Amino acid sequence: MIKVGIVGGTGYTGVELLRLLAVHPSVELAVITSRGERGKAVSELFPNLRGHVDLAFSEPDEQALKQCDAVFFATPNGTAMQMAPTLLESGVRIIDLAADFRLRNSEDWQRWYGMPHACPALLGDAVYGLPEVNRASIRTARLVANPGCYPTAVQLGFMPLLEQAVVDSRHLIADAKSGVSGAGRKAEVATLLCEAGDNFKAYAVPGHRHWPEIRQGLAAIAGHPVGLTFVPHLTPMIRGIHATLYGVLLNGDSDLQTLFEQRYADEPFVDVLPAGSHPETRSVRSANTCRLAVHRPQGGDTVVVLAVIDNLVKGAAGQAVQNMNLMFDLAETTGLQTIALLP
Amino acid sequence: MIKVGIVGGTGYTGVELLRLLAVHPSVELAVITSRGERGKAVSELFPNLRGHVDLAFSEPDEQALKQCDAVFFATPNGTAMQMAPTLLESGVRIIDLAADFRLRNSEDWQRWYGMPHACPALLGDAVYGLPEVNRASIRTARLVANPGCYPTAVQLGFMPLLEQAVVDSRHLIADAKSGVSGAGRKAEVATLLCEAGDNFKAYAVPGHRHWPEIRQGLAAIAGHPVGLTFVPHLTPMIRGIHATLYGVLLNGDSDLQTLFEQRYADEPFVDVLPAGSHPETRSVRSANTCRLAVHRPQGGDTVVVLAVIDNLVKGAAGQAVQNMNLMFDLAETTGLQTIALLP
Amino acid sequence: MIKVGIVGGTGYTGVELLRLLAVHPSVELAVITSRGERGKAVSELFPNLRGHVDLAFSEPDEQALKQCDAVFFATPNGTAMQMAPTLLESGVRIIDLAADFRLRNSEDWQRWYGMPHACPALLGDAVYGLPEVNRASIRTARLVANPGCYPTAVQLGFMPLLEQAVVDSRHLIADAKSGVSGAGRKAEVATLLCEAGDNFKAYAVPGHRHWPEIRQGLAAIAGHPVGLTFVPHLTPMIRGIHATLYGVLLNGDSDLQTLFEQRYADEPFVDVLPAGSHPETRSVRSANTCRLAVHRPQGGDTVVVLAVIDNLVKGAAGQAVQNMNLMFDLAETTGLQTIALLP
Amino acid sequence: MIKVGIVGGTGYTGVELLRLLAVHPSVELAVITSRGERGKAVSELFPNLRGHVDLAFSEPDEQALKQCDAVFFATPNGTAMQMAPTLLESGVRIIDLAADFRLRNSEDWQRWYGMPHACPALLGDAVYGLPEVNRASIRTARLVANPGCYPTAVQLGFMPLLEQAVVDSRHLIADAKSGVSGAGRKAEVATLLCEAGDNFKAYAVPGHRHWPEIRQGLAAIAGHPVGLTFVPHLTPMIRGIHATLYGVLLNGDSDLQTLFEQRYADEPFVDVLPAGSHPETRSVRSANTCRLAVHRPQGGDTVVVLAVIDNLVKGAAGQAVQNMNLMFDLAETTGLQTIALLP
Repeated sequence: MIKVGIVGGTGYTGVELLRLLAVHPSVELAVITSRGERGKAVSELFPNLRGHVDLAFSEPDEQALKQCDAVFFATPNGTAMQMAPTLLESGVRIIDLAADFRLRNSEDWQRWYGMPHACPALLGDAVYGLPEVNRASIRTARLVANPGCYPTAVQLGFMPLLEQAVVDSRHLIADAKSGVSGAGRKAEVATLLCEAGDNFKAYAVPGHRHWPEIRQGLAAIAGHPVGLTFVPHLTPMIRGIHATLYGVLLNGDSDLQTLFEQRYADEPFVDVLPAGSHPETRSVRSANTCRLAVHRPQGGDTVVVLAVIDNLVKGAAGQAVQNMNLMFDLAETTGLQTIALLP
Repeated sequence: MIKVGIVGGTGYTGVELLRLLAVHPSVELAVITSRGERGKAVSELFPNLRGHVDLAFSEPDEQALKQCDAVFFATPNGTAMQMAPTLLESGVRIIDLAADFRLRNSEDWQRWYGMPHACPALLGDAVYGLPEVNRASIRTARLVANPGCYPTAVQLGFMPLLEQAVVDSRHLIADAKSGVSGAGRKAEVATLLCEAGDNFKAYAVPGHRHWPEIRQGLAAIAGHPVGLTFVPHLTPMIRGIHATLYGVLLNGDSDLQTLFEQRYADEPFVDVLPAGSHPETRSVRSANTCRLAVHRPQGGDTVVVLAVIDNLVKGAAGQAVQNMNLMFDLAETTGLQTIALLP
Repeated sequence: MIKVGIVGGTGYTGVELLRLLAVHPSVELAVITSRGERGKAVSELFPNLRGHVDLAFSEPDEQALKQCDAVFFATPNGTAMQMAPTLLESGVRIIDLAADFRLRNSEDWQRWYGMPHACPALLGDAVYGLPEVNRASIRTARLVANPGCYPTAVQLGFMPLLEQAVVDSRHLIADAKSGVSGAGRKAEVATLLCEAGDNFKAYAVPGHRHWPEIRQGLAAIAGHPVGLTFVPHLTPMIRGIHATLYGVLLNGDSDLQTLFEQRYADEPFVDVLPAGSHPETRSVRSANTCRLAVHRPQGGDTVVVLAVIDNLVKGAAGQAVQNMNLMFDLAETTGLQTIALLP
Repeated sequence: MIKVGIVGGTGYTGVELLRLLAVHPSVELAVITSRGERGKAVSELFPNLRGHVDLAFSEPDEQALKQCDAVFFATPNGTAMQMAPTLLESGVRIIDLAADFRLRNSEDWQRWYGMPHACPALLGDAVYGLPEVNRASIRTARLVANPGCYPTAVQLGFMPLLEQAVVDSRHLIADAKSGVSGAGRKAEVATLLCEAGDNFKAYAVPGHRHWPEIRQGLAAIAGHPVGLTFVPHLTPMIRGIHATLYGVLLNGDSDLQTLFEQRYADEPFVDVLPAGSHPETRSVRSANTCRLAVHRPQGGDTVVVLAVIDNLVKGAAGQAVQNMNLMFDLAETTGLQTIALLP
């Protein structure tokens, strides 16, 4: 059994990790920390866990965490980088669901996250936890930077096009729509039901933190820098990301459907839909799957890719468990076979 | 392995049965029928099942169904009673998720469902599939009438009060609220998002088909007829039933919290919350659990019980699987350990 | 023109007052205050008001408010009672949308609102602003306590039954459901879209502040104390209250439909639906109307009344404007003829 | 008073026309037709109209319609073109909210709408009713083709860029999101609350009927053909369209904010937000306003325009009334001053 600790489990990625890990056959949940809720039973905060999780939140305690085989950070940005060095030295393997280790360049990190990085030396060791790109490195990683939700959907959607260089990489457009849970379980006016419900808006058009992360990932895939316009939107639903991706084709002859099907033929969590399909976010609700469709409207020179994930699963907790499975040499799909909840 | 057939799997209880049965360790899905969708892959209609269910819908075929150990009817009312006699004769065990076998009196059935009953003689054989009441009979039943969604929540909520006769049974009130999936996957104006969304209303106040079913169940529990006012409401969400139950206490001294906790101490799917709690429908979303709380506002003589279920799980497909587990001598919770999806 | 001031206009009742008053033909909006948003244009906070309201929020300033003919308080509980005495002395007429002057007994107020009342002497002067009960007194009032949202719906629903004493007043039940805007525009976890969306729950069953207000009102209508169980619920929509009211009839011969129709025949904002109807909350969305239906299920001895209002209009800002119209001798419907927005 | 008839008033554009026209100071509602609902009071179908509209639906009757000054068609595509010639001959002025007269080329119409056009000769007479483009022609038009909802938002968003030729018109992208009311009040599975709620998807990516309409309009604005990729999405809300528009700038020096502000300075129903803004659909809910914002993320060469409208108002019934006002020489804003409903 893998002894697992969770730091900061009071948000939506926290409860989602608990939902997945509580029934994972190879995991023993050892400790879950929260400064604000210490002493409270986890199932008091999240009544869906009654009867499934007996733990109570505890004060973050380095000694307890050092006893773990794996520690997940489901904390705000800037926390994991404080605790990671010590835990790594003790042999604990870390999966950070926040952004602390996603950008390889510490100056970029400081610019976008507004604070200096606490352990820039570790940035080189961290493996970006997108298994469809970095599977081999993840298996041996000590420290995995779990990708952001938007970056997961956008990278999986553009990947076959960039790998095969069939698209003009200077003007990529990612128009992405997220359910409100992407904003987390924080008391804020903007995400009240009465503000975000029955409403649709773009946000952060001048610049969103996932933009440098996506650009870095796409550049790595393409082998050279790419031009990307990224516009995120808030859509009045709880879970789900829908990325609509646009690019100009360099060559009118590509068989895009085959390209996508071949690229993802062996991927357990990427599902390329038949030609002409439109994936729905609910078709992946609660599941670790990314569903994709590729279109070329009116046979023109513009390719449109549609990608959906559950932002809390393939976009966060599920992908983190997938990474853990790889790191601990388990079957990659262990504990992640949930069928999406529809309706 | 239990060889299972599903008749009429194109509605919401159908897809929910598939979600549960596809990962049930003791079930082999053998056949699923739909006249309207015959030939179509199940996963084409319900893309959440892609990669999990390989079946296609087939024309209802008695011979194929007779090969099954168990057949679930997820059909409109009036279908199961046409096919049940032949299947039962062949030794197939039947779980009907529709209303055909819920009322013991065929005249009542005709009055509320607007057609004569096709096999009134079977009404006496059918066991009402509420395990918390009829567990022993279900184990040996050939034909189980799976309870309605409202009746499940209302009966579980009133049961301890009526068994112990602590409440005036002449004026029971059940104010129940349902998510829209209770209306099924039918093309109707009233359940369009633009009609049912951001809106709340009561319906069927003059009389709802679940009223006689609930009255029959409560009378059986109480040992005598009861007076019941039942008002169902449509609430703008997908899944969930919340029943708010009212009764006048006969005796001010009852320890209601203990009464409920003791009654359900050994029930795997009924969870009595701590005193002062308010169960939320989302705390059981996708789970087979009924969560209950009992209140006595301002210490007065009125008891208020709050009961929540997922109408498609404990109120339909999940309870049907629970019944199947009992009928086939499996552990009652097999395949039903899903943790509710929150948020 | 009536010169109007609004104290505390940053919440939902504030923006709703602005929506109504900005197009009211006899009103000049003079001042709107907010300590937290002072200096900010109102239309920056509420972009729906762009082009309609040019005011900016200002620091609360007694001198400016004293220049007004009428001042609306759209503040948290406990603010109006601090400022009312001085303003009243200056001849300003006050409509308080908070609870400060709703309860006639200052001890009750302190028990339910957790602070001593600042000007108990004014409680006797305040008129409870339910025009269907107190129209004459409102016309001459200096200080109107605008009713709560639940109390408006519940009182209008029970009123004909209690006035005519056709119902057992010892065991009245009000099962009420509110949209989330009833909780206000405050940053709180419980009313996030991800918490309150696709979810249904009761709350405050042990005791809600509207319970004493409703009981006081119903007792005044009945002429004697009444027994009331009040259970509020949160429903996943933005606006709207649906009250489902239950009582045991004392006399089986009452023609309830006629009773309701006659009682409200001359009321411009109460609409009794035809027998057998089920009012929907959206049928009053944005309108100042209360729609009612009365039922007697299965001809039994229990009466069921269904009442819907828009909690922000007839349950708050609209009723406040209705009161202002009465106080300033305008036609009662002035500025309140909006047709409900459906869908 | 303008005597007005409505053909086919049982859909969402119908009830929205009634909401607007019932309080329009210069309109007398004379007749409203519906084959399916003839004889039924309009307010029975749409209870929000109780007390405001006394009409009943009548069988379509050419004689009655000929008595009108103006007739609105709120019918399915293909109906108005059958009745228009006769009514026009009688001197009735027509505003068609369907698509019958939107495309200037009858072959295009047949290709996209799947039926031959009944009166291609009238296509040349019809004026495309986008007042911001065709105001002068609308004033004298006998027959106005009211624009589609998506085309209104997309054209208003691209217009300043194309008029000034600051953008590469070969690769325009319109990523548009619509509330579900855009699909109309038809009984269909796809728009049930349980299908479209808590879900997001693209649709009609291979080709949507609004694509030729938008291309025709943009080409007219630009003075030459344009290349357009148009991807519509269904978002789980009732009303609202959000168009996110992308183009590559030809010249890095354009002051886009000023360009937009100047273009729309005199437009009563187009509101250009301050630089850096993100318009929300709810800020125009129930209002005839289009709100726009223009961005240039990271100062790059891609322009992003955000445009929101209420699809039933500026995208349908409101724009139709705006056109009527122009045709009958009324102030353009008459009856259209409603403030958007927020929250």
